[in-house]
Amino acid sequence: MSIADRVRYPEFLSRVMSAEEAAAMIPHGVNVGMSGFTGAGYPKALPQAIAARAKAEHAQGKPYKINVWTGASTAAECDGVMAEAHALGQRLPFNTDPTARKAINSGEIDFIDMHLSHVAQHAWFGFLGHMNIAVIEVLGVTADGHLIPSTAVGNNKTWLEIADKVILEVNTKPPARMEGMHDIYYGTAIPPRRVPINMTHADDRIGEAYLKVDPAKVVAVVETHKGDRDNVFAVPDENSNKIAGYIIDFLSHEMKMGRLPKEMLPIQSGVGNVANAVLAGLLTGPFHNLLGFTEVLQDGMLDLLREGKMSKASATAISLSAAAYKDFEDNIDFYRERIILRPQEISNHPELVRRLGIIAMNSMIEADIYGNINSTHVMGTGMMNGIGGSGDFARNGYLSFFVTPSVAKDGKISCIVPMCSHVDHTEHDTQIIVTEQGLADLRGLSPKQRAQVIIDNCAHPDYRDQLQDYFDRARAKGAQHTPHILREALSWHERFTETGDMRV
Amino acid sequence: MSIADRVRYPEFLSRVMSAEEAAAMIPHGVNVGMSGFTGAGYPKALPQAIAARAKAEHAQGKPYKINVWTGASTAAECDGVMAEAHALGQRLPFNTDPTARKAINSGEIDFIDMHLSHVAQHAWFGFLGHMNIAVIEVLGVTADGHLIPSTAVGNNKTWLEIADKVILEVNTKPPARMEGMHDIYYGTAIPPRRVPINMTHADDRIGEAYLKVDPAKVVAVVETHKGDRDNVFAVPDENSNKIAGYIIDFLSHEMKMGRLPKEMLPIQSGVGNVANAVLAGLLTGPFHNLLGFTEVLQDGMLDLLREGKMSKASATAISLSAAAYKDFEDNIDFYRERIILRPQEISNHPELVRRLGIIAMNSMIEADIYGNINSTHVMGTGMMNGIGGSGDFARNGYLSFFVTPSVAKDGKISCIVPMCSHVDHTEHDTQIIVTEQGLADLRGLSPKQRAQVIIDNCAHPDYRDQLQDYFDRARAKGAQHTPHILREALSWHERFTETGDMRV
Repeated sequence: MSIADRVRYPEFLSRVMSAEEAAAMIPHGVNVGMSGFTGAGYPKALPQAIAARAKAEHAQGKPYKINVWTGASTAAECDGVMAEAHALGQRLPFNTDPTARKAINSGEIDFIDMHLSHVAQHAWFGFLGHMNIAVIEVLGVTADGHLIPSTAVGNNKTWLEIADKVILEVNTKPPARMEGMHDIYYGTAIPPRRVPINMTHADDRIGEAYLKVDPAKVVAVVETHKGDRDNVFAVPDENSNKIAGYIIDFLSHEMKMGRLPKEMLPIQSGVGNVANAVLAGLLTGPFHNLLGFTEVLQDGMLDLLREGKMSKASATAISLSAAAYKDFEDNIDFYRERIILRPQEISNHPELVRRLGIIAMNSMIEADIYGNINSTHVMGTGMMNGIGGSGDFARNGYLSFFVTPSVAKDGKISCIVPMCSHVDHTEHDTQIIVTEQGLADLRGLSPKQRAQVIIDNCAHPDYRDQLQDYFDRARAKGAQHTPHILREALSWHERFTETGDMRV
Repeated sequence: MSIADRVRYPEFLSRVMSAEEAAAMIPHGVNVGMSGFTGAGYPKALPQAIAARAKAEHAQGKPYKINVWTGASTAAECDGVMAEAHALGQRLPFNTDPTARKAINSGEIDFIDMHLSHVAQHAWFGFLGHMNIAVIEVLGVTADGHLIPSTAVGNNKTWLEIADKVILEVNTKPPARMEGMHDIYYGTAIPPRRVPINMTHADDRIGEAYLKVDPAKVVAVVETHKGDRDNVFAVPDENSNKIAGYIIDFLSHEMKMGRLPKEMLPIQSGVGNVANAVLAGLLTGPFHNLLGFTEVLQDGMLDLLREGKMSKASATAISLSAAAYKDFEDNIDFYRERIILRPQEISNHPELVRRLGIIAMNSMIEADIYGNINSTHVMGTGMMNGIGGSGDFARNGYLSFFVTPSVAKDGKISCIVPMCSHVDHTEHDTQIIVTEQGLADLRGLSPKQRAQVIIDNCAHPDYRDQLQDYFDRARAKGAQHTPHILREALSWHERFTETGDMRV
């Protein structure tokens, strides 16, 4: 398949050029909006050409850095190559690439860690500065100049609208028959002109199948033929299966008690092994006609769709292992009818997450005994990936789970600590914490009640006494709503940093 | 005016009784939903009768405690008397009474500090347990048995719906001509049956003027004739005026830069002197036809309405000083057309706060150099009041300000610290921090960039070098996205606790 088969809008064919020629249009210092969400739908050619250009400029002693705003994470061939070439100045709102992570932590890259539902609107409001250029992967262009979105929608609608110039990467690898899978909502506005988003079911289609672009803004069209990053999909381990089991039992119990509607509610599932284990558990669980309303559709949700346990899934990106991707491609007509890809401001919209009553499941780095959650910072200072959409779902969902194994690094780190070394979700937003040790239902509990339940149910036995001792001594200090010994509150993290082990 | 003038539904007149008789229907251990929001519209008689009953039971060696859920804070004659009588077991979601605060911090009361937009739905979902009895202040009952709401709507709609039994306090003191001021939305539902809330302007009326109740549930009607708590309204001091000035200048600048619509956007203003100073600043400021969309309507907003600078104000409660209340009462026909009182799940609804593009202004206890905010805990452990609605507005608003004087306790406490001792609003939710020293616009900044702006613009000169020193040494420790020296991060709070002064 050649680019002429995919670009049916003749005007754009005259703007086909190499990635190097297109990269020459991206000067030092500009703000660039790129496609890409969780290793899907990111540009494959321009980032490498930009990296090459940066290296060439730097070799001549000239500055070259650009600011890159995406949907979420991309891949080594996007964030990785640009970070390696020292081509990134500012980066937002999420990153999982190890090379970029290193540069973020060293301070070379100014990283802004944002709620994913906030990014498009803050850019549109002008809060992040002016967007000069957008580099957007698409699967093709229709005869009337509309763009067929790729495996991730992310913030592409907004980037195409607010950028001065647009560079399209037409990727001929993903199946053309994805056309029609997307639902691009064009009803957003800047206040005071906003109206309700008329979605009442997770599988409602409220927009159009295509992205719009002002053809005059399209300065380059670059052909690529390359799959997304391979997402390694590990078989769930014993801990993940235990966590999944607790969650499914809990949901069944809630339904029996009348606190969860019999129809079940739509499911959001964060990235990672535990999330996939929960979805795997749902495959054989007691719930039927499930709906997905999530950011990223991963292997576990594809399985649920294929097996008929889930009827429809809404997301902003598809991020699959090689095996699952082959199934997706081979059965594209089946999946096109069951998957809806939306802009991330819709997939993660607080209005919709609250209205639809999403059941949110997100992983974390650590929780403290009072239910505060650290999703982003290793030992309080080093950035891991970012908050992503966890806040959009946890704050606004019907039920919200935060999950983690109780220990990390062969038991040298307790994921339940006296005080979180960084807080991304406050006690006000945490409902249920689950580790392989058990589940802590924090709803309707005061901080001191929460602490006892978390220590008893979620802490690893190696750390339980140590946590109880801290809590008891903190309580003994006298009148306090949230007992802490400030001098010791972060000492577990200090100890790990100094000795490599949180255990006394 | 007698109770018969206010209760036009004959059936209820037969259930008129004394507060003591009504309190006898409230047994030990029950969950009681009470009216009341920010010292307005709380029951005036039952709490005192409950307190008396508790004392009598305790004198006989019998247990007597009830769990009390309200809209927000009440007053000494509600929370205060019940706390003093040790009659409170669990209390949610907010408190400002000093006696209750002491019991919360001692652990006698299990206090649950919740986002105010979450309370009604979590109670309705059954997450907080079963509500046995509601005690609701109303201004009267219509001939068809509908209730005329009082000076606060709060969670009354939900309490009336989910409680087994209802006790009405009919307060004949507030003007009967408030009738028609309220807007009670009956379109909410439990997922998956929720629909969009069809409000597109802060002054839209979308509900009914009355609260509904199943007459069969009304077991007692008690007459009271008593005003709400007097809210002391201090003349703004110099610091408050400076903060107000920075905010108004900032808003003007944003409008000039095209980042704030020319129509201006609706204003939310937290409680307190700084908030009132900002509103006072708006009286002479360059903005016209303002709209208020807030929780509590205080003196400052009443002034804006009276002077015609604000056309309409939406809130869930009116909480005024004695002088302002007299103006309100004397000009009730004027204000009834300009004030809309709604349930707090609507006044604070994330869907509406985001759609309408609210400008949020909330006070805080402390901010750290990275932009995290502590709104609730003194020195990390002692509960002050609660998060209230600040999270509802800060997360979802168009612009969000957090304000505080830069120091407290005669300079012995810096309100800008290396690390917050408790986090209620994370770095992801903080946009603009303002002290009397200046304004820090954090939008689009990485943590290290934020730190420098906050230290330079917001810290008190007495603490600036000390903060800069911490930040410099933390940065020097090596690769970190958010530089901290964990051993020192909370040392300012430790120092204050030990020496009474945060200064070295």
